[in-house]
Amino acid sequence: MWFSEVYQHDAKFSIEVEEHLHSEKSKYQQIEFYKSKTFGTFFSLDGYMMVNQKDEFIYHDMISHVPMAVNPDIKNVLIIGGGDGGTAREMLRYETIVNIDMVEIDERVVRLCQKYLPQTACKLDNDPRLNLYFEDGLKFVANAPSEQYDLILVDSTDPVGPGEGLFTYEFYTNCNRILNKEGILINQHESPYYDKDVREMKRAHSKIKQTFPIAKVYQYNMPTYGSGHWLFGFASKKYDPIKDLKSTAWNNLGLETKYYNTDLHVGAFMLPTYVKEQLANCN
Amino acid sequence: MWFSEVYQHDAKFSIEVEEHLHSEKSKYQQIEFYKSKTFGTFFSLDGYMMVNQKDEFIYHDMISHVPMAVNPDIKNVLIIGGGDGGTAREMLRYETIVNIDMVEIDERVVRLCQKYLPQTACKLDNDPRLNLYFEDGLKFVANAPSEQYDLILVDSTDPVGPGEGLFTYEFYTNCNRILNKEGILINQHESPYYDKDVREMKRAHSKIKQTFPIAKVYQYNMPTYGSGHWLFGFASKKYDPIKDLKSTAWNNLGLETKYYNTDLHVGAFMLPTYVKEQLANCN
Repeated sequence: MWFSEVYQHDAKFSIEVEEHLHSEKSKYQQIEFYKSKTFGTFFSLDGYMMVNQKDEFIYHDMISHVPMAVNPDIKNVLIIGGGDGGTAREMLRYETIVNIDMVEIDERVVRLCQKYLPQTACKLDNDPRLNLYFEDGLKFVANAPSEQYDLILVDSTDPVGPGEGLFTYEFYTNCNRILNKEGILINQHESPYYDKDVREMKRAHSKIKQTFPIAKVYQYNMPTYGSGHWLFGFASKKYDPIKDLKSTAWNNLGLETKYYNTDLHVGAFMLPTYVKEQLANCN
Repeated sequence: MWFSEVYQHDAKFSIEVEEHLHSEKSKYQQIEFYKSKTFGTFFSLDGYMMVNQKDEFIYHDMISHVPMAVNPDIKNVLIIGGGDGGTAREMLRYETIVNIDMVEIDERVVRLCQKYLPQTACKLDNDPRLNLYFEDGLKFVANAPSEQYDLILVDSTDPVGPGEGLFTYEFYTNCNRILNKEGILINQHESPYYDKDVREMKRAHSKIKQTFPIAKVYQYNMPTYGSGHWLFGFASKKYDPIKDLKSTAWNNLGLETKYYNTDLHVGAFMLPTYVKEQLANCN
């Protein structure tokens, strides 16, 4: 049995499945858990690979440590999505973090990751600094008080199904409002290669750069996502991700990471020319 | 009909084929040319995707422009492999290049690319600065006079079949001998993700760093190669790829490139921690 993800109508990636651990249609999406020899346990939502044991460290390093190395004073964090727990796990490694609100629309994703993927979900139920909300992220940010957070991490699926609202003006505008003056927004920013990903990448960037004074994009190599070339957005009210990088401070923390380092941080913002052009021509 | 490339025994990437243009077993390898909607014309050697119209610019930008931006005085170049012609095409854009010897073991690859892939092969028969040799690269470098070249580009397949000799001590030692004191060697350096690629990446790096005083590795995003995360080696007798980068001089040339730029040049050498560790522990 093979799990296949269609990257574009005529291109797909397939993984041989050793064991189909779980299949469930939740209120929001189709959830499948599998086990493979090369990738370990992995799960898909609506047919898209979300997380696997072999390369989840790449995604979770890059969503978490980039903003923390720019502003080491981040204390109050909002995670939207991230039901697998990997983003929360990385953020909770910082002793200086005081509070994390994590808003995942689909409780079933969290419960199943706690059962099948403790590698990422291991910190979801044992740190008093983490508050779990099973709510729609779009509504959560609409109702949250202004200037409350230092950092928002949008750890979302693609803009189809439950992730759709997290790629709207309304969402980004509310993120801007509930971030304080030092606030940073990191978002899953799609990919520059296959047509549908390029379209969503441009749509997201167009909206974010009209919402935040600083709006940059950085890249990482995620082998099990379509094309392997993926992006995060770094938007902020004050901080430039390169000029304000605090390399020495971050390195003095002594955090061990398998993907992230402060040289790579700088390199990740150096984009290929064709990607720069796509982002410049996104209005 | 689908073309499938096996990345690891339980992971494969597949492209739907609109037309199977050509199939041939040459003296050296199995050659297949296909056409697909998303990738245009592409060809495989022994089952591995070599070049397609959609993303060949990434590979060819990164093998060519990185050394040229470090030493703009490069005049005499040796290309080993590169039968599709993309590397020669990029190098011949530099008016300062005086001579290119291109040594491709399999004449059939060149002839078929001239027929089916003019996008890459377009400069193989109309520039007097280019000399084509259909010979074994390993023998060619063994017989070449010392200190003859400013640059060697090893545009090879993986180290199985005809590419195998290009990953040996003997080959690297002869490359060192036939490069002059300013010489640079760029080689296809495999990938850090799937087991077999990691093994070959480490073997190559171990040998190169014992042969050249400067041996660095840089990365690029190649969506149709396994994992999408690929590497080139930059070895040299004198030049450091970052300290000796001549950004202004290169930008003043006014060459248009879709992937390469001089910021990306710097970023490409900023490797993820796990890749740095793989390369450090390769003996």
